[in-house]
Amino acid sequence: MLATHPAARGLADDCAVLEVGDETLVLTHDTLVEGIHFLPGQDPADVAWKLVATNLSDLAAKGAQPVGVLLSYQLAHNDARFVAGLNEVLGHYDVPLLGGDTVAPSGPQVLGLTAIGRATFRPVPSRSGSQVGDSLWITGPVGASMLGLEAIRAGSGDSLSYRRPEALLGQGIALAPYVTAMMDVSDGLLLDASRMASASGVNFAIDRDAVPIACPESRRDEAIRWGDDYQLLFTLPADSECPIAARCIGNVNPFGGSALLLDGDVPTGSLGYEH
Amino acid sequence: MLATHPAARGLADDCAVLEVGDETLVLTHDTLVEGIHFLPGQDPADVAWKLVATNLSDLAAKGAQPVGVLLSYQLAHNDARFVAGLNEVLGHYDVPLLGGDTVAPSGPQVLGLTAIGRATFRPVPSRSGSQVGDSLWITGPVGASMLGLEAIRAGSGDSLSYRRPEALLGQGIALAPYVTAMMDVSDGLLLDASRMASASGVNFAIDRDAVPIACPESRRDEAIRWGDDYQLLFTLPADSECPIAARCIGNVNPFGGSALLLDGDVPTGSLGYEH
Repeated sequence: MLATHPAARGLADDCAVLEVGDETLVLTHDTLVEGIHFLPGQDPADVAWKLVATNLSDLAAKGAQPVGVLLSYQLAHNDARFVAGLNEVLGHYDVPLLGGDTVAPSGPQVLGLTAIGRATFRPVPSRSGSQVGDSLWITGPVGASMLGLEAIRAGSGDSLSYRRPEALLGQGIALAPYVTAMMDVSDGLLLDASRMASASGVNFAIDRDAVPIACPESRRDEAIRWGDDYQLLFTLPADSECPIAARCIGNVNPFGGSALLLDGDVPTGSLGYEH
Repeated sequence: MLATHPAARGLADDCAVLEVGDETLVLTHDTLVEGIHFLPGQDPADVAWKLVATNLSDLAAKGAQPVGVLLSYQLAHNDARFVAGLNEVLGHYDVPLLGGDTVAPSGPQVLGLTAIGRATFRPVPSRSGSQVGDSLWITGPVGASMLGLEAIRAGSGDSLSYRRPEALLGQGIALAPYVTAMMDVSDGLLLDASRMASASGVNFAIDRDAVPIACPESRRDEAIRWGDDYQLLFTLPADSECPIAARCIGNVNPFGGSALLLDGDVPTGSLGYEH
């Protein structure tokens, strides 16, 4: 309801774009709630990593270079581990903590992060610029985070992709001058693709088998609906070459009544993680 | 503990100052937790007002002009009232909502706001610039919010000062070129004064009776320890005139072992709201 109110229109998209003097800033704020966005009992160092990396991923989709973050931290049982992870992820991306706030514990832990970036290319890529005739691309495979979450729950196996996703900052900066639209895939490829198509007023026709996946072929239908992989999804003008390694997974057609087709059909069931 | 960690040094102060191109940005993030920073059952419109006004007050103390806010909103029982109050306060200060995030309910409501401002004067006033020989000033009376909270709890009387504090943006911008240090009084005059004196490495000698109060004289000692009034506290070089209406309440001396003297003595007991 907030997102439909005039006072809150900005909440409908992931990033805000702000002209300040000669610069264009890109701002994003994400909140993680214990039990909703991370598992109770998960290593706080991994939670810190994810909090920062997912916000930086929003900047990546705008081709922005991070200039700093503000943290809202609710004290909990293992603050030292959180700080260790925070230090690690800030060092990894070479991003300063500019400030923020700490509050006392109360109920499930709530963590917020504001990330501030500087646009490297203007106009800043949006979700709404895809044109009929464009091709649809993704930077890499989906499904790795799905396997990672299963590994955590099983208590064995490689859970790194779920715990420590990468924000594809370099790729976003490289792509920004060429894309007609771009976003990061946080809630599932099909769902986010349908959002980008809707925002652009077009239809995306996805070739199911062209989507790169990080899991066994038998789980392809799950992988293209699973979130948390943070690949970049983007469209390029027809016949233009992609400046980085990426996979073409479909093309852009007139809307014609549906935002998304998968192998020619409207996909059924859940398209991804709705929240 | 966070604030003492190298990764989190920025959390020790209220605002971050960020040079971006030709501009200097001032950023602040405050989090309000139900039951800690606002009363359960309080009108959500008032909570929205306070969330925005207290963050803008941090910008006021830096002489910054707000350019926008990002909201982290946790859904609750009366979101429509929150949106109404949000709309009202954003309109009052003519500040756009740039973006943010909404999350599902879980336990006590947690609300976060990032406010972004543009510095109007550089260097941006800090808490650490007070010089021996300066005079100490405050923009207006303390104690109004104390009476307001009592009125809410009593269910009668004027509670406006508690519910809808004003961010003194105009005063902050007017003062910025003249002050040697400035901050907003959010946690109590004595406590915040001692913080500013400590940050500056000096002693503030406050004349108790010179402090303007909004309550009966019998409650003066409470009023100078009570928070939530959001007056601006600042120091000016000796003999310089104050460019706006304000009251001189003391002067700045060498540290000499204590950050604060009240009528010549080190004040005893709690100095304000510690959190």
